[in-house]
Amino acid sequence: MIQTRFFRRHLAPAGAPPGTIHVRAGAAEPRYHAISYDAASLEEHAPATVAEARALLRKGRVLWLDVAGLGDLAALEEFVARFSLHHLAVADVAHVGQRPKVEDYGDTVFFVARMVTLSADGGIEWEQVSMFQSEGLVLTFQETPGDCLDPLRNRLREGMRLLRAAGSDCLACMVLDAIVDGYFPVLERYGEELEALEERVINDPSPRVLSEVFRVKHELMTFRRAAWPLRDALSRLLREPHALISPATLPYLRDTADHVMQVVDVIESYRELCGSLVDVYLSGMSNRMNAVMRVLTVIATIFIPLTFLAGVYGMNFDTSRPLNMPELGWGGGYLLFWAVCLLLAGVLLFAFHRLGWLGWGRRAAREDEEQPRQ
Amino acid sequence: MIQTRFFRRHLAPAGAPPGTIHVRAGAAEPRYHAISYDAASLEEHAPATVAEARALLRKGRVLWLDVAGLGDLAALEEFVARFSLHHLAVADVAHVGQRPKVEDYGDTVFFVARMVTLSADGGIEWEQVSMFQSEGLVLTFQETPGDCLDPLRNRLREGMRLLRAAGSDCLACMVLDAIVDGYFPVLERYGEELEALEERVINDPSPRVLSEVFRVKHELMTFRRAAWPLRDALSRLLREPHALISPATLPYLRDTADHVMQVVDVIESYRELCGSLVDVYLSGMSNRMNAVMRVLTVIATIFIPLTFLAGVYGMNFDTSRPLNMPELGWGGGYLLFWAVCLLLAGVLLFAFHRLGWLGWGRRAAREDEEQPRQ
Amino acid sequence: MIQTRFFRRHLAPAGAPPGTIHVRAGAAEPRYHAISYDAASLEEHAPATVAEARALLRKGRVLWLDVAGLGDLAALEEFVARFSLHHLAVADVAHVGQRPKVEDYGDTVFFVARMVTLSADGGIEWEQVSMFQSEGLVLTFQETPGDCLDPLRNRLREGMRLLRAAGSDCLACMVLDAIVDGYFPVLERYGEELEALEERVINDPSPRVLSEVFRVKHELMTFRRAAWPLRDALSRLLREPHALISPATLPYLRDTADHVMQVVDVIESYRELCGSLVDVYLSGMSNRMNAVMRVLTVIATIFIPLTFLAGVYGMNFDTSRPLNMPELGWGGGYLLFWAVCLLLAGVLLFAFHRLGWLGWGRRAAREDEEQPRQ
Amino acid sequence: MIQTRFFRRHLAPAGAPPGTIHVRAGAAEPRYHAISYDAASLEEHAPATVAEARALLRKGRVLWLDVAGLGDLAALEEFVARFSLHHLAVADVAHVGQRPKVEDYGDTVFFVARMVTLSADGGIEWEQVSMFQSEGLVLTFQETPGDCLDPLRNRLREGMRLLRAAGSDCLACMVLDAIVDGYFPVLERYGEELEALEERVINDPSPRVLSEVFRVKHELMTFRRAAWPLRDALSRLLREPHALISPATLPYLRDTADHVMQVVDVIESYRELCGSLVDVYLSGMSNRMNAVMRVLTVIATIFIPLTFLAGVYGMNFDTSRPLNMPELGWGGGYLLFWAVCLLLAGVLLFAFHRLGWLGWGRRAAREDEEQPRQ
Amino acid sequence: MIQTRFFRRHLAPAGAPPGTIHVRAGAAEPRYHAISYDAASLEEHAPATVAEARALLRKGRVLWLDVAGLGDLAALEEFVARFSLHHLAVADVAHVGQRPKVEDYGDTVFFVARMVTLSADGGIEWEQVSMFQSEGLVLTFQETPGDCLDPLRNRLREGMRLLRAAGSDCLACMVLDAIVDGYFPVLERYGEELEALEERVINDPSPRVLSEVFRVKHELMTFRRAAWPLRDALSRLLREPHALISPATLPYLRDTADHVMQVVDVIESYRELCGSLVDVYLSGMSNRMNAVMRVLTVIATIFIPLTFLAGVYGMNFDTSRPLNMPELGWGGGYLLFWAVCLLLAGVLLFAFHRLGWLGWGRRAAREDEEQPRQ
Repeated sequence: MIQTRFFRRHLAPAGAPPGTIHVRAGAAEPRYHAISYDAASLEEHAPATVAEARALLRKGRVLWLDVAGLGDLAALEEFVARFSLHHLAVADVAHVGQRPKVEDYGDTVFFVARMVTLSADGGIEWEQVSMFQSEGLVLTFQETPGDCLDPLRNRLREGMRLLRAAGSDCLACMVLDAIVDGYFPVLERYGEELEALEERVINDPSPRVLSEVFRVKHELMTFRRAAWPLRDALSRLLREPHALISPATLPYLRDTADHVMQVVDVIESYRELCGSLVDVYLSGMSNRMNAVMRVLTVIATIFIPLTFLAGVYGMNFDTSRPLNMPELGWGGGYLLFWAVCLLLAGVLLFAFHRLGWLGWGRRAAREDEEQPRQ
Repeated sequence: MIQTRFFRRHLAPAGAPPGTIHVRAGAAEPRYHAISYDAASLEEHAPATVAEARALLRKGRVLWLDVAGLGDLAALEEFVARFSLHHLAVADVAHVGQRPKVEDYGDTVFFVARMVTLSADGGIEWEQVSMFQSEGLVLTFQETPGDCLDPLRNRLREGMRLLRAAGSDCLACMVLDAIVDGYFPVLERYGEELEALEERVINDPSPRVLSEVFRVKHELMTFRRAAWPLRDALSRLLREPHALISPATLPYLRDTADHVMQVVDVIESYRELCGSLVDVYLSGMSNRMNAVMRVLTVIATIFIPLTFLAGVYGMNFDTSRPLNMPELGWGGGYLLFWAVCLLLAGVLLFAFHRLGWLGWGRRAAREDEEQPRQ
Repeated sequence: MIQTRFFRRHLAPAGAPPGTIHVRAGAAEPRYHAISYDAASLEEHAPATVAEARALLRKGRVLWLDVAGLGDLAALEEFVARFSLHHLAVADVAHVGQRPKVEDYGDTVFFVARMVTLSADGGIEWEQVSMFQSEGLVLTFQETPGDCLDPLRNRLREGMRLLRAAGSDCLACMVLDAIVDGYFPVLERYGEELEALEERVINDPSPRVLSEVFRVKHELMTFRRAAWPLRDALSRLLREPHALISPATLPYLRDTADHVMQVVDVIESYRELCGSLVDVYLSGMSNRMNAVMRVLTVIATIFIPLTFLAGVYGMNFDTSRPLNMPELGWGGGYLLFWAVCLLLAGVLLFAFHRLGWLGWGRRAAREDEEQPRQ
Repeated sequence: MIQTRFFRRHLAPAGAPPGTIHVRAGAAEPRYHAISYDAASLEEHAPATVAEARALLRKGRVLWLDVAGLGDLAALEEFVARFSLHHLAVADVAHVGQRPKVEDYGDTVFFVARMVTLSADGGIEWEQVSMFQSEGLVLTFQETPGDCLDPLRNRLREGMRLLRAAGSDCLACMVLDAIVDGYFPVLERYGEELEALEERVINDPSPRVLSEVFRVKHELMTFRRAAWPLRDALSRLLREPHALISPATLPYLRDTADHVMQVVDVIESYRELCGSLVDVYLSGMSNRMNAVMRVLTVIATIFIPLTFLAGVYGMNFDTSRPLNMPELGWGGGYLLFWAVCLLLAGVLLFAFHRLGWLGWGRRAAREDEEQPRQ
Repeated sequence: MIQTRFFRRHLAPAGAPPGTIHVRAGAAEPRYHAISYDAASLEEHAPATVAEARALLRKGRVLWLDVAGLGDLAALEEFVARFSLHHLAVADVAHVGQRPKVEDYGDTVFFVARMVTLSADGGIEWEQVSMFQSEGLVLTFQETPGDCLDPLRNRLREGMRLLRAAGSDCLACMVLDAIVDGYFPVLERYGEELEALEERVINDPSPRVLSEVFRVKHELMTFRRAAWPLRDALSRLLREPHALISPATLPYLRDTADHVMQVVDVIESYRELCGSLVDVYLSGMSNRMNAVMRVLTVIATIFIPLTFLAGVYGMNFDTSRPLNMPELGWGGGYLLFWAVCLLLAGVLLFAFHRLGWLGWGRRAAREDEEQPRQ
């Protein structure tokens, strides 16, 4: 079934002023996790409140504060106050379902991206990640405590020199890169699914397969709506880099932008592949129809004249009159009748053979066997 | 039925000079409502004439004058005179059906947008909202007294600090935001309608459903023609902000532009979905045809040879001659006939079973049951 | 029938140098009409020659010289000489069928647009209008004396203050506006035609209707080729206004560009509508086919087994032998035969009813009745 | 048959360095023709070698050297040396099949365009024309001695004042214009061909016609690949004119660019027309299928019940028993049988008439007659 | 079978920091080959280690170091250190499957392109070529020792003056040109394959041919994804040339960009051709269906009434009653029956002939014979 659900987004109630932060019912309570590091040392904290988190900010060090859970309105409003964030940006954090974007708020850069996770049972889940980057601070917001950023944390702990020595801009870039890296396994999943669907479209083209193709096509569209605006936003940022982003970070940003571009390319290929599968399906349908029609035509065309002939000799003309069906009285009349029938059938079969209508079933079957070997 | 009505717009009579204000027959008499506020206080008035309204304008305060009803030519011309508006812009106010746009008239910015309302019975109505913004003044024109701006008024009355302290540019931006916020419930309505249509296209693909799909597709096109030019106009305004728009207001404008972008994205998705539904419908039609053909072929193919056989033994060859149908005289001839018939039918049924033609109906039915569970 | 004629344009003979003015055979003799005005006074003249017309040009006044008929080569060459026009531009005047454009020849701006007229019998005729604007002069060339500019003349005579006080740039802009205003009634005609076609595609989908849809689609393409380049040219002019066009005229030009944009929007909608109509037509065809197949299948499937049965009891097995068709000798055999027939028919009808094949005709008819009410 | 041949181009052998000039096997020996002129006088020469040709170059005069035939490698290399051409450009001259382009080599401008000739038997041949323009020199290279530039030569000889007085830039522009002028007759040929195809698609839709439509579509694509890049190159040249091109020549260049734009417009229209023809063809096929199905259904549906009835009265039930087919013994049984048959046939015919299935053939035929008159 | 494999690329393990070089399992051990040249002399070396290779770099000479095989992580990291390469770029070298691009790392330009080789058995293999160009150095990395650059090496050895005298920028440009030159034979292979497919689509349209068309279409898409980004990157480089690229090299770069553009053009044509082949296939299917239906309809329609007639005269009405089937007793009744049958068949055949249904098979066959000759 084609999904239309994705299009619904969380919205503040109609009529609320822009910048009103509205917490979605059922959103999780926030949990805070902070990493403060410089080239020399790294500390981890689990602050309980926004105020505690704010206190960890220290000059000369980079603080990465990760907030998982968007369910606490008061906390979000405290972020606006204590970290001098724009309330519009914080509203975008709470109202998940935003278009990926990069926004410049003077001394803060605000990023929105969509993170994808491939769950163990093959499900694909999208989640909004919002990030604020300012001098010495990276603030990330997620809906649920996610594991896509854990490898990045481990690398920080293991003391990756390059990253530890660089500023908050480099960390922000690494966060984006980690999110984009998460797109590739999902892309491969779609690739495998399309391969399986292709197999089925050729060998067992039921309406259900078609409906699966459309489902994949629409999920790819959802994917594209996550990747395409991110690509645009990153390209714009590369063309006119923000003052907060140091030249040394630009190659990393370009690398990330490059990966998003690759993702978009592959999505386009896959979407076109879906279109081809629909064409293959429809042509398969049309072939089946043809095969059915051929069988009907061959059998009906052979027997219809024969049945007429049998009907003729079942007529009750008065055979005592000389011209009325003398054949009925002949000694070999019955055998002659069968001979005529067989001859007629043979001629028709030969004609159909010449038209190529007889070998169809077998030829098609042979092709089906050959194709997988191809 | 596909609507073509929307394309008609109200026009001045052909040959009238540009800038001629022409009042549409049947347009309502204007009603005025004014709110004058600064950070400290707020007053409301219901001026009876344009002159009275003009008198409310005071330095250091923002005046929001809302005009509902475009049926009074003299009043519109008085606006041109008393508020120094360009007559071309006022003509655009009266000639509803304009493309959404933002125009710069030096000390005034002129906005045209399309407001949508979802009536209680599910109808969707579009209306043009025109707005002039100049120093300390926001002038809005609507065709009918609408309630989409009421929440904004309430917020002003409740003394929303941020808005009350800002200038007329912020108010204009809030008006646009309120209009765009109104697009989302309508989008969701279309989403629900498409889900219902998808259900019907799969389970009950009548021509009527197809015609509904086309109706939705064309309504979405109408929607797109309201959102797309607004997006363009706002992007242009963001790139080269007008002097009247203060930097503090820009993030709000960007937020509104963002929302319009999201609307356009979703509309595109929906339009593509409509295309897929048409494909699903056509393939469903083709499947039905196949099923019908199969039934006909199976039954005809089984009975045609049998009928021929029955015809043969109904022939009147003179059985007194030894070679003429001796079968008729055999003791078990009749039983043998039935045995041959059953055998033949069995062989054909088995062949059709191998071709996969028999299980179709049942398999399709099973799939129908499974799909909703998916 | 799809028109391909429009694409032919009048050309100078192959090999002629660019700038060679070539008069189309059959083009009408020119008639001149001149209006000379300033804010205070207005004079009208009907000069007989180009020289006379040239003499009317006076400093401080605006001269509008309208030339209807392009059949006089000598006159056209005299225009080049006496009004210092570029011979390439005058060649474009004579070689009608040019793409709409705006060209800058230093002290002259050259406009080409396409004027449409809706004749009394519903025909749509396109004609090229060429216009030169320089300081104090507007020169318009038409193929036939047209009435689309008459309202503009009347307004000048009636002394429209704004226009009379402005320069030749304002007049040129009004001429363009008058031409574009003429597009809207034609658009509405197409809208009505499409509505009628939609009605017919749904209720009476003959091949002829389809051919009409294609005709409209191609006429819309012709329309688009008149509007789209004009839109481009006007946008470019607005972005980089020519020195001859005063800032006060720009809003009028923008208004005209706006109208062209609306025209292009509606044309695109209509073209998409044509595409939908083709889809509706094809699906209607497919439905009809389905209905035909169903009737055939239902009737054939019911009667084929019955006919076989009748054939069986028409066989001539020797009933004197005990096992040979004892049914024939039973007292109620014949009634039993009919009972079996009715039972079989009943079972099959019930099965078809369950498959939803029986109600089709009636259901489809009901839908046809309901749709118009929608 | 759809042509794929055009895509092959002449290439230097793989691995040759760029700039290696490689002469195509079978290319003709070059013939030189030189015209040297200024405003006052004109001389013509037929130099035998490149050195002789070089000697004709004189200050204050324009030399047009035309080289027909690209088969002499030594001569081409001599051109590089004696006329200071870039070897890459000369390699492009020899390797015909280049994309049309304009390249700036400092003191030389290099043009590549595609010339089309309509041979007497209706064939369409494409050929590459390469041109170098520098101060006082225009060098043109063609594959075969063509006549498309002859009219231009005649005009030079006849002393066309404007061209004779201008520099080599004007001559280069005239050469381009002559090439583009050659596109229009070919466009008209395609227009006529499409009109004829349209006629055949409607009246006699055989697969062969469809294949012709595809052939025209692909030839138009070839055409587009000649015109589109030329349009781009000329637009770029107009936006940033080369120092060698004087302002007085720009209007002529713009005129040529305009013509190419018109060509591209018409090609797009024609390609869309091809698409419509395919749709018309497919819908015609579907109509024929419908007509065939209807005939089969009407005849089968009428006779199948009647045949069953005849079969019933051919049964051999023992009529001596009272309930067994007493109808057979009735005096008017046979007439009653016919009456029932006719009644049944009548009822069915009426039903089909109401469904609109009977008049089809006749209605369709009537429409075919009417359409041409339209 | 449509390939989806191409989309998989080699990736560092998820979560690795950007710039982590990860060697693909199974990648070959690197082999080094160095050419050091200036205008006067050329030396070749086969250094065993990166350090040895580094030592070959000498001022005033150009060093081309070719690395075939990406399987040695330590060596790649040594390249970063000894040649001052950016580790991100070297990671892109190892992680093959990158989008073609040109990146500027200050004193180094980094190129990624895709090289295609046509193997002897007709297979098409894509491989990533990465190249670093800096003052006096060109570093190329390939997955396998390829022969596509061998001709370039030979030219260097043979002392091509132009190339030997120029700097490393010219060599880099030649490498790109060699890669792009390799695209043309593959394009021609696809052209031949499409021609063969076209032949088969028309003469033997089996589902397998359709599947081949889709395979080619998708391989062309892969091709396009190699050529299109390269075109973009080269155009950008041409618009804003890097300081390392001398003006004398620009024409060579432009030549290469030109060739890529041609490749993209032809790919687009081929993709459109694939679309046409699908249309031709579907219309061929539809024609076959029509032919089958016609045969069935003609034979069934002729024999159904005749069979009814035979059934009528097989009825057992009591002929002793005067009105019951007196025809049976007529002397010429049987002959009359046959006469009626032949007459009826003749009339029907004539009707079908007029509808054009009879000549189909033969006409279609004739067309098939004629088409190849066309």
